[in-house]
Amino acid sequence: MSKVFASLGISLDGYVAGPHAGPDNPLGDGGERLHAWLYGVEAWRNRQGPGGGETGRSGLVVAETFDRAGAYVMGRRMFDEGERAWPEPPPFRAPVFVLTTSARDAWVREGTVFTYVTEGIHAALDQARAVAHGKDVQISGGAHTVREYLNAGLVDELELHLVPVLLGDGLRLFDGVDPALRLVKDRVVDTPDVTHLRYRTVR
Amino acid sequence: MSKVFASLGISLDGYVAGPHAGPDNPLGDGGERLHAWLYGVEAWRNRQGPGGGETGRSGLVVAETFDRAGAYVMGRRMFDEGERAWPEPPPFRAPVFVLTTSARDAWVREGTVFTYVTEGIHAALDQARAVAHGKDVQISGGAHTVREYLNAGLVDELELHLVPVLLGDGLRLFDGVDPALRLVKDRVVDTPDVTHLRYRTVR
Repeated sequence: MSKVFASLGISLDGYVAGPHAGPDNPLGDGGERLHAWLYGVEAWRNRQGPGGGETGRSGLVVAETFDRAGAYVMGRRMFDEGERAWPEPPPFRAPVFVLTTSARDAWVREGTVFTYVTEGIHAALDQARAVAHGKDVQISGGAHTVREYLNAGLVDELELHLVPVLLGDGLRLFDGVDPALRLVKDRVVDTPDVTHLRYRTVR
Repeated sequence: MSKVFASLGISLDGYVAGPHAGPDNPLGDGGERLHAWLYGVEAWRNRQGPGGGETGRSGLVVAETFDRAGAYVMGRRMFDEGERAWPEPPPFRAPVFVLTTSARDAWVREGTVFTYVTEGIHAALDQARAVAHGKDVQISGGAHTVREYLNAGLVDELELHLVPVLLGDGLRLFDGVDPALRLVKDRVVDTPDVTHLRYRTVR
């Protein structure tokens, strides 16, 4: 059975983006510190273009995340930011469903078709599942979109890449998540720079 | 060289106490869920009275924490709450220095002398170090006291016992901690119920 998962970098004080996040500053002030561990990882660099980079435990976690995702769902803001920043070809290599309120034709790029969904989070997930070929569906983000799926009880696994930095302000993943959400620890992969914590949701 | 450390249970959404914490509800609503893993651990039960309990990885972490502490510093509120709740003998078995604004005679109990310090956090730490016999000093809490010591650059190690629960509201450890605090991951001990994350501070 195909699973639905999300995977986010998070600071020790709970932020997934720093303060003053916006179209020109998608991660917020200091937010790039949440992903510094990622930028050197081979599996990520292969998808982003530059190539090279490190393997190791973080590399395996990232490679596994790419491998398992047969389709993606993302929020409109994340898409708008990514549209200007993703390399050609985009890093997904699988269908992406974008939650939006205004219809738009699909955007076909090499290896990735972006389809706009105006019928809400259930419809987007159904469409993603239908084309995932039995693989899993990743709720890419941003945080608001992950929260919506968590609160709708639609997420099976939540992986947090916990980085020992403090951002002090910004966007907290769990603000607005129903505290009735039940999580069970599934796996921890520890590395010097980041601790990969994976939780399963329990219904 | 004697180290200064703190050790706190924390929810996945960053709380060290739930909402409505107060004298009659020291952990706040739901806050006991942060410590559920602890109540079954042998090393804790030995100090708290009932005996029995589990060893295992969490047991080793707790035993090590008790063993290394040659003296304690705690805030007045934590003391006031504990004074009514600790068993006889109290669990510390080492000198405890209580931060307070009004002088009071030392309170001598079996194995533990509580000394009240009105001269502030540096004075309390100096007094604790002086009697720790080369062992470490634990900043017991509460969160406000740990924050004061973190912001003063006086903490060498911070251990967080991360529990996969969401409290949704309450007291956040890192609210008010200067985000310039630099931390380096030192050790992770993972168990099914709790992930023990230890960080060193860098100056």
